[in-house]
Amino acid sequence: MQLTRAADYAVRVMIHLATLPERERALLPALAGATGAPESFLSKVLQALSRAKLIKSRRGHAGGFEILPLGRAASMREVIEAIDGPIFLNVCLISGTSCAREANCPAHPVWIKAQTAMMDVLSGALIAEMASQAVARKARTQRVIDLVQPIEPLAQ
Amino acid sequence: MQLTRAADYAVRVMIHLATLPERERALLPALAGATGAPESFLSKVLQALSRAKLIKSRRGHAGGFEILPLGRAASMREVIEAIDGPIFLNVCLISGTSCAREANCPAHPVWIKAQTAMMDVLSGALIAEMASQAVARKARTQRVIDLVQPIEPLAQ
Repeated sequence: MQLTRAADYAVRVMIHLATLPERERALLPALAGATGAPESFLSKVLQALSRAKLIKSRRGHAGGFEILPLGRAASMREVIEAIDGPIFLNVCLISGTSCAREANCPAHPVWIKAQTAMMDVLSGALIAEMASQAVARKARTQRVIDLVQPIEPLAQ
Repeated sequence: MQLTRAADYAVRVMIHLATLPERERALLPALAGATGAPESFLSKVLQALSRAKLIKSRRGHAGGFEILPLGRAASMREVIEAIDGPIFLNVCLISGTSCAREANCPAHPVWIKAQTAMMDVLSGALIAEMASQAVARKARTQRVIDLVQPIEPLAQ
């Protein structure tokens, strides 16, 4: 019951792309550096995000990856599901898959409750908001770095 | 991000064993029938539950599988973790695995929140309580069956 590595990288890369100014594009090596993901693996993740219309890629001189409005407005759940497909904590929760035990299974409502509790958190976490937090955190860190910079010694 | 089949069967078999009167033992074929699990697979699940001291098995004439007090008092979370090990929605939540990005990653607190929300539900679902629900449900179903039984025609 663990998120795939691909979905983890997808969340990271989406947040990073959303920190960039509108229409700014980033190249694969920069995105790999920002997310800590291997380039070849991240490339496949980016393809999946492009197919889901959350980002777009452009080749050539001014090429790179750019977040689309749909991606900026997406939740963590939507990004994960763009990579891994719909999330179901247990196979009995897959809609359309009838479970003969469902009506008499006291675990079934618990699975529904656990899944709903988790999904509510992931649906409420928006990429744009997390990107704003990342930008604010970076700015705070920069201010601290600036403060602790040693004062240049006076010329003697 | 889905429960393993083994953990799913473990929850089912624990609830079933908890519906039995104290010290009553059930044989593998009966447990396979009650849970819908293949015998060979369920046998491995039962071994893991025995190792976790949630059930015990006895060989011989009056042998079979019996739930232990620890098993009756266990939560769904404890049963799942007895099979799959500790639950971590994302690799960054594994304690002891330091994530270099953690301090600046706006997704990290979301993962903690999602995991906590899900775990609270699974920790609050007790095997003994679910077994009581299953027994009550079975009794209700039996009453309905009794009610709709056709009245025996009078002897002519």
